Amino acid sequence: MTRVVLCGFSYGGYSKSIVIDKHFVLIVPTGLDPAGAAPLLCAGITTYSPLKHWGIKPGMTVGIIGLGGLGHMGVKLAHAMGAKTVMITTSKDKAMTAIKLGADEVLISTDPVAMQGMINQFDFLLNTIPGPHDYNHYMNLLKIDGCMSILGSIGPTAELNTEPMVYGRRTIAGSLVGGIKETQEMLYFCAKHQIVADIELIKMDQINTAYERILKNDVKYRFVIDMSSLS
Amino acid sequence: MTRVVLCGFSYGGYSKSIVIDKHFVLIVPTGLDPAGAAPLLCAGITTYSPLKHWGIKPGMTVGIIGLGGLGHMGVKLAHAMGAKTVMITTSKDKAMTAIKLGADEVLISTDPVAMQGMINQFDFLLNTIPGPHDYNHYMNLLKIDGCMSILGSIGPTAELNTEPMVYGRRTIAGSLVGGIKETQEMLYFCAKHQIVADIELIKMDQINTAYERILKNDVKYRFVIDMSSLS
Repeated sequence: MTRVVLCGFSYGGYSKSIVIDKHFVLIVPTGLDPAGAAPLLCAGITTYSPLKHWGIKPGMTVGIIGLGGLGHMGVKLAHAMGAKTVMITTSKDKAMTAIKLGADEVLISTDPVAMQGMINQFDFLLNTIPGPHDYNHYMNLLKIDGCMSILGSIGPTAELNTEPMVYGRRTIAGSLVGGIKETQEMLYFCAKHQIVADIELIKMDQINTAYERILKNDVKYRFVIDMSSLS
Repeated sequence: MTRVVLCGFSYGGYSKSIVIDKHFVLIVPTGLDPAGAAPLLCAGITTYSPLKHWGIKPGMTVGIIGLGGLGHMGVKLAHAMGAKTVMITTSKDKAMTAIKLGADEVLISTDPVAMQGMINQFDFLLNTIPGPHDYNHYMNLLKIDGCMSILGSIGPTAELNTEPMVYGRRTIAGSLVGGIKETQEMLYFCAKHQIVADIELIKMDQINTAYERILKNDVKYRFVIDMSSLS
């Protein structure tokens, strides 16, 4: 038996049913908790798509920059793809969490000695930091031909220094989300590796409190509303 | 018969002979004018390497940004690789020269209407502008998954806007020069397609005048010294 998730036009985000073109229907494989699977359709595919596009596989070293909604999925997925997965974060207190999520190592990006020690070590960096920041801080971590993909910071940011890019043929790329076909592939991948998002399931009448907590960045890592609580 | 070019340590750039490891010797194929071939070892390989690395071939549209020493080689090489080659320049008076060099079209980058008309048209941009400038001006010209490779501007430059990168999975990359193996490949490619750099051959006693003209950007596109004029 499979469950079905519908995405597309609807009359309000809290509808209990919608009519939709069959090409935009996705199968959520059995064995995936529906609540934990819900954010896979956003944070999951947003991190899965660039990891697949840049060919992440065993033998590679991948850095996930930032541990939030995108970052925690990036760690789980890169680990499941067989890469040596390094969480890169400013917060020492996120280290244990990152290891539990599947990171092999943690690199504290505010530690100049630790950063120096990881120069030229990464095949790929998945940058999930949500706001403007200095990309140049991370470029030297990449090997020759390495790529840093930007997911979270959309718009103007710091001045770009091309020096580490020119001398190592390093690359900065953007990535947005993924198409329906790749999203379905991601769902099967997650079922195979038993991956869901870490979520807090709330009832409809808790939505205001949840919204206030989101503003304070106080959620690990997504709120999911139990729609049966609407009735 | 083949001529041999020697590169490596020497006691002064104007030596008439040097001793060198055989692994750093390149064959200049017969049929290439030695004076025109000399800059291939710098401007030639600097533009050939990224065009090869990013797989330029017939059916692709390639933009060469900037018409100087690097740019004029970029036009010749991209054209020889079979791509539709567009010179992108601020100077209307360079248009005819670009066409003569092999460009299929010229795009004046200070013309907002012309730039708007070329959005999403390029598979690859070879950016040869030598100083800091606004990269964001060119990013929307790329198709989805298109790449702009920076050759000339090394160091801090304008603030990067990731928006066109994220929404089109577009990429900015650096590229430096090329290795010995690829340089040899480039020389054979140039021999096959009868490509050399456009140069001005000077005698040793004209070197001061040439240097002053370089400072005024008055050379099309490289000075080459006839070493027989040293005696």
